Formats: sequence, structure tokens, C-alpha cells
Amino acid sequence: MTQPSPAAVRPDAAREPRAALRERFAQVRALSQHLCAPLEPEDMVVQSMPDASPAKWHLAHTSWFFENFILQPHAPGYRCFDPQFGYLFNSYYETVGSFHPRPERGLLSRPTVTQVLDYRAHVTHALDALAADCDAATWQRIAPLVDLGCHHEQQHQELLLMDIKHLFSRNPLKPAYHAHHPPPGTAAPLGYHGFPEGLQRIGHDGAGFAFDNESPRHRVFVAGFELADRLVTEGEYLEFMRDGGYRTPQLWLSDGWATVQAEGWQAPAYWQQEDGAWQVFTLGGLRPLEPAAPVCHLSLYEADAYARWAGARLPTEAEWEVAAATQPVAGHFLDAGWFHPAAAPDGAGLRQLYGDVWEWTGSPYSPYPGYRPPAGAIGEYNGKFMSNQMVLRGGACVTPPDHVRATYRNFFPPHTRWHFSGLRLARDL
Amino acid sequence: MTQPSPAAVRPDAAREPRAALRERFAQVRALSQHLCAPLEPEDMVVQSMPDASPAKWHLAHTSWFFENFILQPHAPGYRCFDPQFGYLFNSYYETVGSFHPRPERGLLSRPTVTQVLDYRAHVTHALDALAADCDAATWQRIAPLVDLGCHHEQQHQELLLMDIKHLFSRNPLKPAYHAHHPPPGTAAPLGYHGFPEGLQRIGHDGAGFAFDNESPRHRVFVAGFELADRLVTEGEYLEFMRDGGYRTPQLWLSDGWATVQAEGWQAPAYWQQEDGAWQVFTLGGLRPLEPAAPVCHLSLYEADAYARWAGARLPTEAEWEVAAATQPVAGHFLDAGWFHPAAAPDGAGLRQLYGDVWEWTGSPYSPYPGYRPPAGAIGEYNGKFMSNQMVLRGGACVTPPDHVRATYRNFFPPHTRWHFSGLRLARDL
Amino acid sequence: MTQPSPAAVRPDAAREPRAALRERFAQVRALSQHLCAPLEPEDMVVQSMPDASPAKWHLAHTSWFFENFILQPHAPGYRCFDPQFGYLFNSYYETVGSFHPRPERGLLSRPTVTQVLDYRAHVTHALDALAADCDAATWQRIAPLVDLGCHHEQQHQELLLMDIKHLFSRNPLKPAYHAHHPPPGTAAPLGYHGFPEGLQRIGHDGAGFAFDNESPRHRVFVAGFELADRLVTEGEYLEFMRDGGYRTPQLWLSDGWATVQAEGWQAPAYWQQEDGAWQVFTLGGLRPLEPAAPVCHLSLYEADAYARWAGARLPTEAEWEVAAATQPVAGHFLDAGWFHPAAAPDGAGLRQLYGDVWEWTGSPYSPYPGYRPPAGAIGEYNGKFMSNQMVLRGGACVTPPDHVRATYRNFFPPHTRWHFSGLRLARDL
Amino acid sequence: MTQPSPAAVRPDAAREPRAALRERFAQVRALSQHLCAPLEPEDMVVQSMPDASPAKWHLAHTSWFFENFILQPHAPGYRCFDPQFGYLFNSYYETVGSFHPRPERGLLSRPTVTQVLDYRAHVTHALDALAADCDAATWQRIAPLVDLGCHHEQQHQELLLMDIKHLFSRNPLKPAYHAHHPPPGTAAPLGYHGFPEGLQRIGHDGAGFAFDNESPRHRVFVAGFELADRLVTEGEYLEFMRDGGYRTPQLWLSDGWATVQAEGWQAPAYWQQEDGAWQVFTLGGLRPLEPAAPVCHLSLYEADAYARWAGARLPTEAEWEVAAATQPVAGHFLDAGWFHPAAAPDGAGLRQLYGDVWEWTGSPYSPYPGYRPPAGAIGEYNGKFMSNQMVLRGGACVTPPDHVRATYRNFFPPHTRWHFSGLRLARDL
Repeated sequence: MTQPSPAAVRPDAAREPRAALRERFAQVRALSQHLCAPLEPEDMVVQSMPDASPAKWHLAHTSWFFENFILQPHAPGYRCFDPQFGYLFNSYYETVGSFHPRPERGLLSRPTVTQVLDYRAHVTHALDALAADCDAATWQRIAPLVDLGCHHEQQHQELLLMDIKHLFSRNPLKPAYHAHHPPPGTAAPLGYHGFPEGLQRIGHDGAGFAFDNESPRHRVFVAGFELADRLVTEGEYLEFMRDGGYRTPQLWLSDGWATVQAEGWQAPAYWQQEDGAWQVFTLGGLRPLEPAAPVCHLSLYEADAYARWAGARLPTEAEWEVAAATQPVAGHFLDAGWFHPAAAPDGAGLRQLYGDVWEWTGSPYSPYPGYRPPAGAIGEYNGKFMSNQMVLRGGACVTPPDHVRATYRNFFPPHTRWHFSGLRLARDL
Repeated sequence: MTQPSPAAVRPDAAREPRAALRERFAQVRALSQHLCAPLEPEDMVVQSMPDASPAKWHLAHTSWFFENFILQPHAPGYRCFDPQFGYLFNSYYETVGSFHPRPERGLLSRPTVTQVLDYRAHVTHALDALAADCDAATWQRIAPLVDLGCHHEQQHQELLLMDIKHLFSRNPLKPAYHAHHPPPGTAAPLGYHGFPEGLQRIGHDGAGFAFDNESPRHRVFVAGFELADRLVTEGEYLEFMRDGGYRTPQLWLSDGWATVQAEGWQAPAYWQQEDGAWQVFTLGGLRPLEPAAPVCHLSLYEADAYARWAGARLPTEAEWEVAAATQPVAGHFLDAGWFHPAAAPDGAGLRQLYGDVWEWTGSPYSPYPGYRPPAGAIGEYNGKFMSNQMVLRGGACVTPPDHVRATYRNFFPPHTRWHFSGLRLARDL
Repeated sequence: MTQPSPAAVRPDAAREPRAALRERFAQVRALSQHLCAPLEPEDMVVQSMPDASPAKWHLAHTSWFFENFILQPHAPGYRCFDPQFGYLFNSYYETVGSFHPRPERGLLSRPTVTQVLDYRAHVTHALDALAADCDAATWQRIAPLVDLGCHHEQQHQELLLMDIKHLFSRNPLKPAYHAHHPPPGTAAPLGYHGFPEGLQRIGHDGAGFAFDNESPRHRVFVAGFELADRLVTEGEYLEFMRDGGYRTPQLWLSDGWATVQAEGWQAPAYWQQEDGAWQVFTLGGLRPLEPAAPVCHLSLYEADAYARWAGARLPTEAEWEVAAATQPVAGHFLDAGWFHPAAAPDGAGLRQLYGDVWEWTGSPYSPYPGYRPPAGAIGEYNGKFMSNQMVLRGGACVTPPDHVRATYRNFFPPHTRWHFSGLRLARDL
Repeated sequence: MTQPSPAAVRPDAAREPRAALRERFAQVRALSQHLCAPLEPEDMVVQSMPDASPAKWHLAHTSWFFENFILQPHAPGYRCFDPQFGYLFNSYYETVGSFHPRPERGLLSRPTVTQVLDYRAHVTHALDALAADCDAATWQRIAPLVDLGCHHEQQHQELLLMDIKHLFSRNPLKPAYHAHHPPPGTAAPLGYHGFPEGLQRIGHDGAGFAFDNESPRHRVFVAGFELADRLVTEGEYLEFMRDGGYRTPQLWLSDGWATVQAEGWQAPAYWQQEDGAWQVFTLGGLRPLEPAAPVCHLSLYEADAYARWAGARLPTEAEWEVAAATQPVAGHFLDAGWFHPAAAPDGAGLRQLYGDVWEWTGSPYSPYPGYRPPAGAIGEYNGKFMSNQMVLRGGACVTPPDHVRATYRNFFPPHTRWHFSGLRLARDL
């Protein structure tokens, strides 16, 4: 999900009531702007690292997506808001044309936030008018794209929060995005659920939206395994640190150890020590370490080293999906309003599968057997990123709740940490 | 002037009428904010390269200078606006304490522009109150520092414009800072003025303000030389380019040639070719090349190569000062309101010595014989930068007119180009 | 195989006749030195890039392996040749102790080649004496390690040739390692062999030597596929180039396209254009492009882009192994003496599976289900490299012929090219 | 002297007896090879950093100089040894043609040492034959070039020793180039000699050889100053270190302090601490710190910071030359055979002006007034390096004794340390 954008197109979106999709479109567009309410214009222009984008850019790029893929080809007489925006706000679609270099997004003090909001209003209005007025044949063509554009914008909602968190963390004033502070919980004892070996099916079965990289559904042989019933906590991770985890090369992948040395890592991202006590920077500002909260902002290397230290391993994505398919989608999401991973609730079953933090798997991000990217520029959405990345599963507290499912494949390089990523342990049976 | 800040202290500032200095202080403070009038908040937060600073930072740092060097030590009961600002807005005074890394100034979306303006108002008011109310002994102590702080802020006014120009140049929308477009002039034929050999005196004689690096006044033997009566123009520089100037290593210093190769330079900074015609980006936006306008935004390497191509050389700073001492200070400055170097006026004498563009000399920036930096943190203002830099003389169209003089020593590394720098030819007699 | 070294230990090596293993040891040791016969001392000290090592270093490191893992723990009274060599010639075994930084291997002009050969003789002699004289219990313990050390040294024989080729390619004199020039062949038409879907077993079954990463043998579901009956040729790859392959971003993985841009790739490594004709640098010096020879020295990115252009894809490692298991191990190897990939022989079946070039697969290098690295330092041999690398299968013309097998998993990062790597096309059925 | 090569041509060399210059040529050529006697071929091929060159390269480049500038234009029928050597062994003469990149000199395992020695013999023989047989008119033309070529080769003799020292220092085995260990001396108390202000003349007066950058002789006004009568010692420098010299930013130039931080400098180059005691790596291997020996291998930044700490400053090059002009050329040079700076002898006067270590001055390397580089490629010898470098005066223990004089201007960038550089204190009078 490093560079989200168009994805698989779901033809059956056109079979849903038109009003429902229009309503969903309106809600998604509104939420993006609502997420910016706590921000000053100054917060929305800065790019704090090449991987991140300014909030302003997210607002504009998601609009460009609707404009470029729906309005320009399908809305008769559509007036482009500004022809230069195609260059500025195309993220990475080589098929569409040249684009502004990603590491220079923070140089764009213009267009201003106000101008970007005007752009959004222009696009939102034009798209809603098109959806309201177009004939059935046009609707057939555009409904799957509207559906896709909404999911695309939801990905950017999460990225926007990740990027703001990173920006605020680099400021010595340590600004807070919000003032919510959920009460600390307690961590239940860790248990494991076993799953027997067998020939399984994973991948999306075609009901409801999914990105192209979740297809085709296919058979995979999975050996017997067991999966922890909750996430690893900050307290448990602190034990790993105290046991010399960051000083023991034998626990690490070779590239991971090189990264630890080169970056001077001694703790997860956003952890800092003050007067001997660990503080964790969150969207609510700095708070003391919470032993029961899921550990978050780990690289794959750290998750992998922790698992090795704990006598376990990361699950494969097939294991995760097989296990998750047995569970309901429920969790602790962005719309709960506080954007913190939280301690596991009591109860049986596999807890914290969704919401809280994305879970690193040991699976490199590769195409499923028989995978074909869609034709055209939309084909660049996912397929071309299938190298040097690892799959994460589940969803995080900054992920919109209707944007997760058991088959969802999130992906990041093994050394990045600004995403809300943690881990769940697995073991061979 | 890469990193301007406190400088030499002029004790006789205390002998001027107190009202005059208060008036000057008020004007300088107001001008800094006036220069930001065309800017949006988004423009004021971005750092477009490590050498540049956000406009917001300039506004805050110049206030910190007054707060740190005058208000805190000399104003009884002064309430610091925000104790964290000492870390954020100290530029490079190791003696004062640790400071925020220069390349990360663009990460500071907070404090906002509004908060920085509040900070400015707080400092301006407190300083004016102190100056109004303090006893004579205090005034004796602080008047030279107020004087220095005003000159310091004037340096940052020029930097602010340099930095905004750089930022806007990196934006594909090519925003304009202002809408003034002076009519093109015509270039007078180039003439030379001769100066005989002799033992000369250069450096500041103590009347009026000067920075520490202009002292002490001292004797220097200068061989006979002649100096061009106007600056090199864009049209002349274009001839150099057309003659293969950027492809002929024999014209260049070795480090210069390496820079040309590494950076791919083919023209001065801010020049770009469109459909075969050269356009020049200015604070007024893109405009066509003006043959009579002084060429601007050259590195020392380019100025030196041009001079060699032209069968001449750069003047030394002693030559320039000896020649300039015979001329009045007059020119085409920031307060003229359009911020462009302009064609030389008709008439005799050495034209364009001040205003328009800074003139590269062939003199490395070194201490004058007997130079001593002031005691304390103010001693870091100039002395520690005396390596790897070359002296420029005169002043530019973005320099405040009461901030130039014949003895002024500006300095930049030989490879930088975002300052308003051009050249005047010299020859041995 | 980026950093070869100890691996899985095969306990049943101890059941072979002692004389046979001693003979194999002698042959392997001799071949390493034989490979250096065409080299001058000057050739053996230079490190032409951080990924490569000096020939001298390979000779010493492989000796250190026997000294450190066998002689020091198991040979009573063994006298260490030079205690400092443990630091100099440990490659990457953190468990053993600190080691000389890999990128600085080329700084070691001492020990000289002569001293390294003395070291080799010392170790060879001591190990042979130990093997000759030790009791059965000791033999039980060391035989698997001797076996492993021989395979380890064989990996370095290939690396030595790869590294010499790279070194010579960087010299404008274009030295040749040997003078053999096999006659060009002709390329048979490309055919495909189909394989039906099914639950298969891959991985090593325990008979004969294998590295730890080939275990455990396990079940994997493989969908129906077909595999080309020969390698892609230089002539075919030239068609891809002429069709704009290196200028068409849609053909490339995103990281691959970024690499093409950053490195300016326009052809495989070691190809150069002279007067419009392509020349290929080989261990025999520069030779004209040979249309029927297998294309070699591709990155994964280039192999993947070619396959996409050809309407095919790379095989997975499971597909490759399932197919190869049906074929005999035969090919065109290092001991044939000319070290060039060669045109496919006539005949039916899957040709060129072994020898010639390593074949990129689309499989990231990951642990097999249930994989456990061996205990101790030997456990660092393979397992810790299981990230950011892709699997290659088969073997190359620089691989010792008794060092290949259907289950062998070679691995390199997707952007490297100095290994002898090409590709075979696959398609879904 | 970073990149030594052809220089000013001395026409009166032709008036010396031909036999004398032939004898000098023979001696210089022989000494270069004699200096390589302690080296193995492996030592002669490695380039330990971009600033350094392999010994083999020095031997070849100095031969190319004679071949390119004398034999090819002036020796009828001269047979070029190898046409490719013109590309390989041209150092930086753009006028002559393209050349092999400096940082890649260490990739050239071929030509071998033996081949380079053959090249040397070929050139030495051909040049001697030309000098023996040519007519008077030819001799008039070539004698100044032979003279220049000898001085050029002497510069490379010093570079060769600097580069070997650097190479050996990077080897954990710490090889020694020789086995001489002069007995430690004692340091005389530091005294100062005063020199009154006055209009002085500096620069070469035309008698005997000098490089172009020493001309023209010219007038310069020098204020009164005093100069220390000996060099700063290792013991004195250790006091600076113990007093926190490397932790006190106020003592440093801004660029110097940045370098200290970036490089982690805590002592001069080649100093290392073992069990709390300082060891100094020399051409004779590691030896304990010698309190009376001149401190060596300082950057300009360290020399400048030390002088500031000591309440003094670096001399200007004019001051140094004015003072040195009053003293005989005598010292402790390369031909003394041990290549160590040594404690100052007893006695009056300015001791250690020549030999021992080069002395940093506070003067940037700039052209003298009226300087003109020679015409043609020889004009690239010195002039193009006149930026970003500082002048050193005197000569070092690795400098040939007939290669120093009061007017000699050596130069290096302020941050480099592999040259034999120390300092002598100066003060204003």
C-alpha cells in the first residue's frame, strides 16, 4: 500500500442501488476533509520524508483519481479544474503521463489548501451530478470505478493519518492531532489456536469489493499450525528489548541486522526514552508505554526478530487468511475516534484480527497463481509493486472499518515503520 | 552571508539619539512583515533546500536574536514568549546552546505563521518598551546590540527573498511573488577605468555601522588594474554559452568543471529553455531573456569561467573596494519595489556598483590582518565562516539600500547560486 | 548465494568411505588453485565492487572455513596459521566473532598471494592428516563438516569466476581470462512442455548432500503450467531491446523501472555497443553477440520484463523443480573448460536445465514450511538471507558439475547482475 | 599538490650542462623505483581511497608525462609503448584528451607491475637516448621539459609514500614499509622570532626551477608578526586534546566543526588509542606517541583550532616566506631514509622550516597578482586548482631534499589529512 491508487474493478458494483453508492461516495469524500479538521494549513503542506505525502496532496490526488478515470472519459462537457493538476497529482501512473516526482511533493506550497478544497468541491460536485444524471449504460461503466475510487480514497485516509503522525513526531514541540486518551487495558494471557494441515482455498471469491491482487481465489496446501489469540504487546516487546534483542545479531535476518546497525534502532518507531522511562508518540501526543497495548510501528525485521526470540515465527499470509476466515470482521477502527491500538478485549477466539494494528506475515508480496492485472492504467494499481515487499494482514485503528476483509493484502517493504504495524505469533503444529 | 547572525558591535551607536534608533528598529521590523504580504501561510513553511529557510523561520529567528541577546540579559522581568523557541530558532550559536538542525527547519509546521507573528509582536513590543524606558547606562549597553539586530534582520530580509524565489522556482506552477515588470533597458558599450598601483588602505574606518569582518582597516599593496564600468549582461553571457562555454574544460577551475559535470549545468540558475528561447525565472515570474539586464545567479565558477573566456578576470576585493571608495553609494535596491537587476543607466563612472547584483571577486573570504572576533556568542557571527567561501561585493536589488557600503564583505561558497550574484570584469594594467 | 558459507550438515556423509571424501576434498582444494592459474598476483587482490571479493580472499576464506569449523575444534594440537586470519577471513558469522568489513576486502594487500597459498597448504595438509588419522568417533563428527566445506568451496569457485569477470570488465584493456571460443550454435525453435495441476512434493529427500534451505521436503499445490524447452537467447533478447523494452515502463516492476532509470540500463550487464554492433564481454574477452547463445547477466527485473513482453512469465521455483525432477542432471559446466553459456543441443525434453545459466524464478527466497536452521554458527549459512532475494534454479557454466541438483536454491537480490543468470519462460495452462 | 603534473617551464634549464640534467633525470627515475623496493606487487595495485593512487599508477603516470610531453612531440620515430596507456595514465589534462576516472585507478590490475616497469624502462631509455643525441635546437626545447618532468616525478615520489602509508594504515595487520626507528628526541622550549611590518617581495625570482604558481614575484604589505622557532609537537597537541579540543565548537571554523562531527575525529589521522595509550601509525609501523616529535597528519581545521586554543594563529604564506627567506634550506628529508618527522635540533633560529612536516598557512591558494598559466596542456598543471585549497609551506620528511625552496607553494583542501602536515604558530606583533 506504499503507493495506493486504482485497483481491480468490480463489475457488480453496477448492480447495487445507485443511491447507495452515491451516499457512500459522499461519505468518503466528507471523511477525508473531516480528518483534516484538526490541521492548520501549515501542517498540510509539509512532506516529512520521501515515503510520506502532504495532507494537501492526499486531498488533491484522490480528487484527481475521480477526475482522470471517470469525469474526463465519461462526463460529457466536463471542465477540467486545472490542466496542470494532472501533472501535479498523478501519483505513479506511467500510462497516464509524466508526473511530479514523489520526493518533491513537499515543494508545492501552491496550490494552497483553499485551492485544493475548491478542487475537491469541483470534483465532488461534478461526479455526483454525473452519477445522478447519467443513463444506465454510463452507470454500468462508471459504477465500478466510483466504487474503486472510494476504496482508493479510503487507503489515502489511512496514509494521511500515518503521514501526519510522522510529521508531528519530527517536531520538537510534539503536537497532538487529537486529545483522546483511552484508558489503558490489561493484557490477557497469550493462548494459541491450532489449525490442521490441509488443502485450502484463499483469495477473494468475488462477493463485494476486492483489489485485483486478492484474485484469483486458488488452492494452497497449508501444513498444520497454530496462531496466537492476540497481538504481541508493548510490555512483551519491552522484555525483548531488555533481553538485548537489538544487540543480538543471531535473532535477525541479515538485512535486518544491517538496518539496525545503520539506523541505530533500539526500539520501535515513535518510542523515546525520557529519564529512563519509555514514552510512545501517538496521534494524541506522547504517552507512557502501555504494557497491554499492542506494539506498533515495527518493521518486518523487528517483528521477525521478536518472533524468533519468542520461539515462534510470523504466520504466512495463507495461514492468516485461513484462520481469519473463521472469524467475524470486528475490531477497533478509525471511526472509533481515537486512533490508538488498544488492549485485547476479553473472550475466546482470535482477538484483534482487525483494527488495532496491521500484522506482518512472513510472506513476500507476490502474485497469486493466475493473477492478471486489469487492462489500462488501472493495471498499474497493484501489480507493479510485487517485489521487495512483505504482506501485512488485518487492518489498523487508522483503517476505515468498511475497508478491511479477510482477503485484504496490504504490503510494505521490510524496513519501513511509519505504518501501524505489529505482529501476532505463529508456530508449527 | 550564508548563515547571517550577530556581528561586530558598534559602541558609538549609543551616541545617536535614542529616538532615531527606535524609529529604525520599528521600520526594520515592519519591513520584514511587509515582505511576507504576498505570501500564503503554505509558502512560509516550506524549506526548498538545506541552504534555504522557511519565511516563517526568518521571521522567528530575527525575533529570537533580539530576545536572546537583548531582552533576556537586559530587560528586567522579561517573560520569555516560549522557552522552546530558543532551541527552534537559534541558527548556529554553539555558545548559546544546542539548536534544531538546519536541514530540518522545513519540518516545523508548528508554530504556525500566526503564532510566529504573535512572537514577533511580543518581542517588538518588549524591545520598544525597554528602549523607551531604560536608564542611560542600560541604553549604553543595548544600543549597539539593537543596531546590530537591525542589520542582522536586514540580512534576513534579503535571504527571505532569495529563499522564496528558490521555492517558487521549484514549483511547476511557477508562481510570481509580485507583478512588477520593469521595461527592458539597453546596455551601454563596456568601458574600463584604470587605477594605478599603490599602497592602499581598505576596511572599515569606524564611522557608522560595519560588521566585525570589515575590520581592522589596514594597508594592502595593489598593483595597477582596470575595472569594467558596468556589469556583464545576460546577452553577453549568452554569447559565452553559445561559444561552448559550458563544454570547454580549459575555461574552468577544476572544481568548477567537476560541478558543471555533476550538476549538468548549461546556463545560470533560473534560466530555462522553452521552444529554443531562454526564459528567466524572477520574483515576477518567468520572463524572456533581457540582453541588457545584468546576468544574475551565477556561481563563482561560472563568473570565473566567463571572465577567462572574455580575456579578463574577476577583481580582487581590495581592487573593488579601492575603486568603489571613489564612487557614491547609489543604485537599484529592494525598496524600488520590483526586485530585478536592471540595465545600467547612461553616464560616466563605475555604474551598478550597488544594487542589481552582488559581484563575485576572486578573493577567498579570509580574516583581515589583526582581525579579532568579538567576545561571547556574538563572536560566532562571522569569523567561523572564514573557509571555503569567496567574497562578493556591492549589493543586490533585494538588499535594503541602507545595508550596503564600500567595505561590506558578503560571502558564499563557490558553487552556490541562489543569491543574486553576477560579475564585473577586471584586467591587469 | 550472495554470501556463501557453512550450511546444512549431512550426517550420512560419515557413512561414505573415508577415502572417497578425502579424495573429493583434495580435488576441490586443487581446483580452486587451478582456477587462479591464469591470474597475476595483481588480479587477485582487487575488489571491483562491494558485492565482489578478491580472488585471494576466496582462497583464504575457504581455508578459514575448514580451519575454524573443523581443525580448531577437532584437531588436537592444531596450530593456527595466523590468529589474525580469523578476523580477516570470516565472511559473516556473527556467532564466531567480529570480522573485517566486506566492502574493505580490497584494501588487504597483505597477506600476499604467496602467504595465502601457504595458508591453504597448511590447512589442506592439516585437514588431510586429521582425516587420515582420526578415530571413527571423530570421523563421525567431522565427515559431514568436510562434506559441507567442499560444497562451500565449490560455491566460492563460482564466485571467484564471477568476480574475476567483473574485475576484468572494468578494465579498459578488457583482459581475457582464457582463450577458448566455442563455435556459435543455432537456436532450436522454442517449444513448451505442459504439466498438469496437482499436489506435489518439493525439497530435498535426504539422499546425498543438500543445503539446509532445501529442507524439509513438503507438499505444495501447483496449478497447471507449461515450461519452455530451452533458455531465452541473446537474439531473442535483442528483439526485446529493439522493441523499446528498456523504454516502456508498463513492462517493468516499479522497482525495476526505477533501477533502469537510476542505472541507465539499456542492455544486459557486459553488453556494449561498438559502431552499432553489440559486443558481449566474456571470460574469453569481448566477442560479438551470438544470437543462439542463452542471454546471461540479467537482473530479475530484466528477466521479468522480458517475460511480460513475450506474453509469458517466470516460473515459480516449485514449477521448476517439479519439471526438473523429471529430467536427468546433465549440461554444460565449469569443467568443460570454456565458461560460456552455449546454444541448446538438439533433441526433445527440457534442455539446458543445468549448466549454461542460472534461471530466475518468480519466487522470493523464503523458508520452506517447517524449516529450521542448524544450531550454532553454521545456522547463519543460509537462513538469515531469507529476505529481499529471489530464487534462481539450475546452475551455470561456471558451476562445478557435481554441485547442482533439482532441489538447489540459489538466490540473489533482484537488481544484481554479475552472476550468470538468464531465464526460461513459463505460462499458465 | 593533490594532483601533481606538468608545471611552469624554466627556459634557462637549457643553459645547464646537458650531462648534469641527464644525470639528474637518471637519479630521479631510479629513486622512484627504489622507493618501491619494500613493496609487494599486491601493495602496488590497490587504491585505498579516491584521493590516493596505486604505486603502480604513479610509476606509469610519471613515465607517461615524459612520453606525452617530450618523446611523442620531439623524438623522431619514437614508438609509443602502448597507445592505450595515454588514456590510462593521463591524470587530468583535459587538453590532451579523455582519461580514466581517478577513483577507478584501483580497478586496473592490468598492466601488471612488471609491464609497468617495462614501460618505465622503455621511456627512460628513449628519453636518455634523445637527450644524448639531439641537436642543440632540440635540446633548447626539451631541456626545460625534462627539468619539469623530474620535478613532477619528485612530487609523485612523495605522493607514493603518502599513498602507501594510507594503504597500510587501513590493513588490520598494520604492515611496516621500513624498519627504521629513530630515537626520540626532546623538544626545546618554544620561542618566537619577530618580524617588523613592511612592504615585502615574495614569489620566485627566476633563479633555478620553480612552478608557475610561484610567479610573478610581487610586492605585498606585511604587518608586524612573530613566528614560532619550531613546530608544534605531538605532546603539545595531546594537551589540546586533553583540554577538550575536539569537543569545543568555539575553537573551530564552522566547516571544521561540521567535519569533526561528521567524521568523528578525536585525534590526528593515524593516531589510535590502545589500552589508554596513544599509538601513532608511521611508515615504520605503529609506535608510541613521541612527545617531542612534530605533530603530523593534521587537517587545516585541526591546525587552525589548535592555534586558536594556543592563543596564536596560523601564519600567512607571505609571512612564512618572508621569514624563511632569511634562513638556509636544511632539514630532515626523504633521503635521510626513515621518513619520520623528528624533534627539533637545538640551536637558534627558525628550526624545522624544511623537512619534517608541511606547515599549514592561513592563506587560501590563489593566483599571485599578474599570474598567467603557461600555454597548452602544461597550463593545467597548477592554475586550475586555485579554489577550495589552502597553502602549505616548507616540505616534509617524505619530500626529496632538492625539491623544496622558500617560495614553494604546496596546497591541499582544508579537510584532507593523508599528507605529512603539521603547523608552526604565529602571532601579531
